[in-house]
Amino acid sequence: MQTSATPQTDPPVTLALARYLVDARYEDLPPAVIHEASRGLLNWMGCALGAARHETVQAVLDAHAPFFGPPQAQIAGRAQRADILHAALVNGIGSHVLDFDDTHYRAVHPSAPVVPAILALAEWKRHSGRELVHAYVLGVEAEIRIALSVFPEHYDRGWHITGTAGVFGAAAAAGKLLGLDETRMAWALGIAATQSAGLREMFGSMCKSLHPGKAAQNGLSAALMAQSGYTSSTRALEAKRGFGQVMSSRFDPSVITTGLGESYELLKNMYKPFACGLVQHAAIDACLQLRREYGLAPEDIEAVHATVGPLVMELTAKPEPRTGLEGKFSVYHALAAALVYGAAGETQFGTAAVLDPRVVALRRRVTAELDPAMRKLEGRVSIVLKDGRRLDRHVPEALGTLARPMSDADLEEKFRNLAGDLLPAAQATRLARACWDVARLPDAGEVARLAAGPG
Amino acid sequence: MQTSATPQTDPPVTLALARYLVDARYEDLPPAVIHEASRGLLNWMGCALGAARHETVQAVLDAHAPFFGPPQAQIAGRAQRADILHAALVNGIGSHVLDFDDTHYRAVHPSAPVVPAILALAEWKRHSGRELVHAYVLGVEAEIRIALSVFPEHYDRGWHITGTAGVFGAAAAAGKLLGLDETRMAWALGIAATQSAGLREMFGSMCKSLHPGKAAQNGLSAALMAQSGYTSSTRALEAKRGFGQVMSSRFDPSVITTGLGESYELLKNMYKPFACGLVQHAAIDACLQLRREYGLAPEDIEAVHATVGPLVMELTAKPEPRTGLEGKFSVYHALAAALVYGAAGETQFGTAAVLDPRVVALRRRVTAELDPAMRKLEGRVSIVLKDGRRLDRHVPEALGTLARPMSDADLEEKFRNLAGDLLPAAQATRLARACWDVARLPDAGEVARLAAGPG
Repeated sequence: MQTSATPQTDPPVTLALARYLVDARYEDLPPAVIHEASRGLLNWMGCALGAARHETVQAVLDAHAPFFGPPQAQIAGRAQRADILHAALVNGIGSHVLDFDDTHYRAVHPSAPVVPAILALAEWKRHSGRELVHAYVLGVEAEIRIALSVFPEHYDRGWHITGTAGVFGAAAAAGKLLGLDETRMAWALGIAATQSAGLREMFGSMCKSLHPGKAAQNGLSAALMAQSGYTSSTRALEAKRGFGQVMSSRFDPSVITTGLGESYELLKNMYKPFACGLVQHAAIDACLQLRREYGLAPEDIEAVHATVGPLVMELTAKPEPRTGLEGKFSVYHALAAALVYGAAGETQFGTAAVLDPRVVALRRRVTAELDPAMRKLEGRVSIVLKDGRRLDRHVPEALGTLARPMSDADLEEKFRNLAGDLLPAAQATRLARACWDVARLPDAGEVARLAAGPG
Repeated sequence: MQTSATPQTDPPVTLALARYLVDARYEDLPPAVIHEASRGLLNWMGCALGAARHETVQAVLDAHAPFFGPPQAQIAGRAQRADILHAALVNGIGSHVLDFDDTHYRAVHPSAPVVPAILALAEWKRHSGRELVHAYVLGVEAEIRIALSVFPEHYDRGWHITGTAGVFGAAAAAGKLLGLDETRMAWALGIAATQSAGLREMFGSMCKSLHPGKAAQNGLSAALMAQSGYTSSTRALEAKRGFGQVMSSRFDPSVITTGLGESYELLKNMYKPFACGLVQHAAIDACLQLRREYGLAPEDIEAVHATVGPLVMELTAKPEPRTGLEGKFSVYHALAAALVYGAAGETQFGTAAVLDPRVVALRRRVTAELDPAMRKLEGRVSIVLKDGRRLDRHVPEALGTLARPMSDADLEEKFRNLAGDLLPAAQATRLARACWDVARLPDAGEVARLAAGPG
């Protein structure tokens, strides 16, 4: 099969991507990309730890523990270890279930499908930290480029792109760690393609986080199968009945290959300060600013009116959530909780907060209006006080976006809040340091082992 | 959520299907359906045994054996046992890899995704033969009805419907064995829906048989997760961003529920006498008839011309196959091999046959022409002999179709041919008997254990 340097014309894009993944060298990574990988790993780990006792993680463990193989890899925040495929599944679910994980500025939660696959594999096979970092960077690169080749049409159709593109990221990253050659890397991408799945109908149920979990597990399995000679198409992305054409009404293969090795999508990754979907963050941010500046108490507030972009109303218009998970999909809850508690972390999206009478009462006085011209990460809030005053705040870019990124210190504080309930402080400190220093670790498994939870 | 008795109007079809699956009683199964389940199980088992040493099965075992959990379930035709999820994966792949497994008269290979899931579960949990039979019948019913609700548009778009619908069949069948209640059965269907996958681009590679393998494994996992309280949408089939609307340009939910419990899709199942795609069977049948009746030898033949339906040319137009697997997707090879060997079993689709100079020489004198008016299982062949004679044969319905079904004796002979190389004759006899008598077995696991291969 021909590979071409100009994939825009009849592009054998799967093989071109495979060749890039195989040929890429760690030495060519810019320092900023390596540092971003540390930030991403730390943020991923905090999210996984924060969810270690979540009922979603418990349910998947209950269902699958009878089938665990040898204890090859750590389950984050638990005493339990599992075979690498099950560790990838559980950690993939756990790191997404709080909806607190990272988000690429256009599409996909990059780390949840990728990190669990390669962290487990690296622990089992004793790969170095720089091998882990390199695999992570390349997996995210493949995942996001494939996502963008079909975005937004593919997402609009109803696909949860973190699952559908995530499986490619996990396969690419695991394939890099395994040292696959070009053909086998293309097979790994093909085995991933034919497992690409995840429906947006699942939002609001535990199945949303199943998507990155299965993406991690299936992508890892794809790379292992390709290594063992399990054949696939080498044209899985671009063929007439391949991923791009079957799963989207538009597919631009040039997005996958143009500028590979010159730009890095990981640098466009964002971290959430608030424990819910990013689309609500600007409005939450506006509420928190007004609360802080005016010392607002819930009983001062007559009404809250938010003006938000289309995705907010599409994704988070649940008026009366009854569980913490549903609360993450209710902009009404998010704004009420932020105003009641002055925060929007995991606690504010717990079931107790969702049922808190003060939050419920204020939630019913929150309205939201769609402004189609508003950008995804923009928001405006008007608060009418009982004394008649009206407070307005426009947030063009929420905290955590590329324009206002969380600092390293912000990220470490977020990590500590999430890890705090679970790990002794000294262990959390060592784990945070291992994440910051990951590229210098001789054995990347140290990161995974430091995430072991209490028995 | 409302469930309605008239699912044609605003149908909550996922819950309606779940309720049927939960309420259905073995006592209501017609005897013909129970007998068909025996036939299907025997045919499935033969296919799995015939592929037990296939390189595809070896590759998936090589990749996954390091992650096997406890030895809960038998891998057909091997000495090895595995946890039930891996047994389902490997047996699902193995039973489809020869392309010799059953085919519903309209769409999907029904047994390969369903039987591996429930045979493993039944062995582990010591379910009775009648429980296995009932779960099998219901799983196939769900799988085929869901397939038909989107067929043919879904398939035409590029989805391998045996994978995409098969995962529902495995989930429904396993959910029945597990005794799920209505909500959990709906969750199981939802967890299955959000893993529905499999691209037709994979045809001709090992990934084609990965589809029923993963469907079996993921469907089984879906039912186990639902049992453990892992939540999903209860509207996964019909919702705006659910299976039917995301994965097909047409979705008719009434097909899923109309006449449930009154008709049984398993009765419309077909078994293949020839080891390749069903669409080629009529033309193969015609060649075998002419060879037999006129005592043809390859050297007598000047040219072979087949007139076939559209799907033959779409699926099997590979002019120069180089492996056995590619040979199954070449109508040219299939007809040449049938004329050279007087048979079209596994041997005739082995790599040795594909490379046999006599077959290669004759293959190059085979032409095929599309007749858009021809039905899927119809075929016509003209053979021009070197002495100038021309022999014509029209086969309106190939052997193995509903109009000309294989007899019980035919099926047992097929089973013996497939099992013959692997199992001692006495074991094969006992295994065949266990399949025929499955509904009377106190422990269905006997079927699985009798399929253990040599060490």
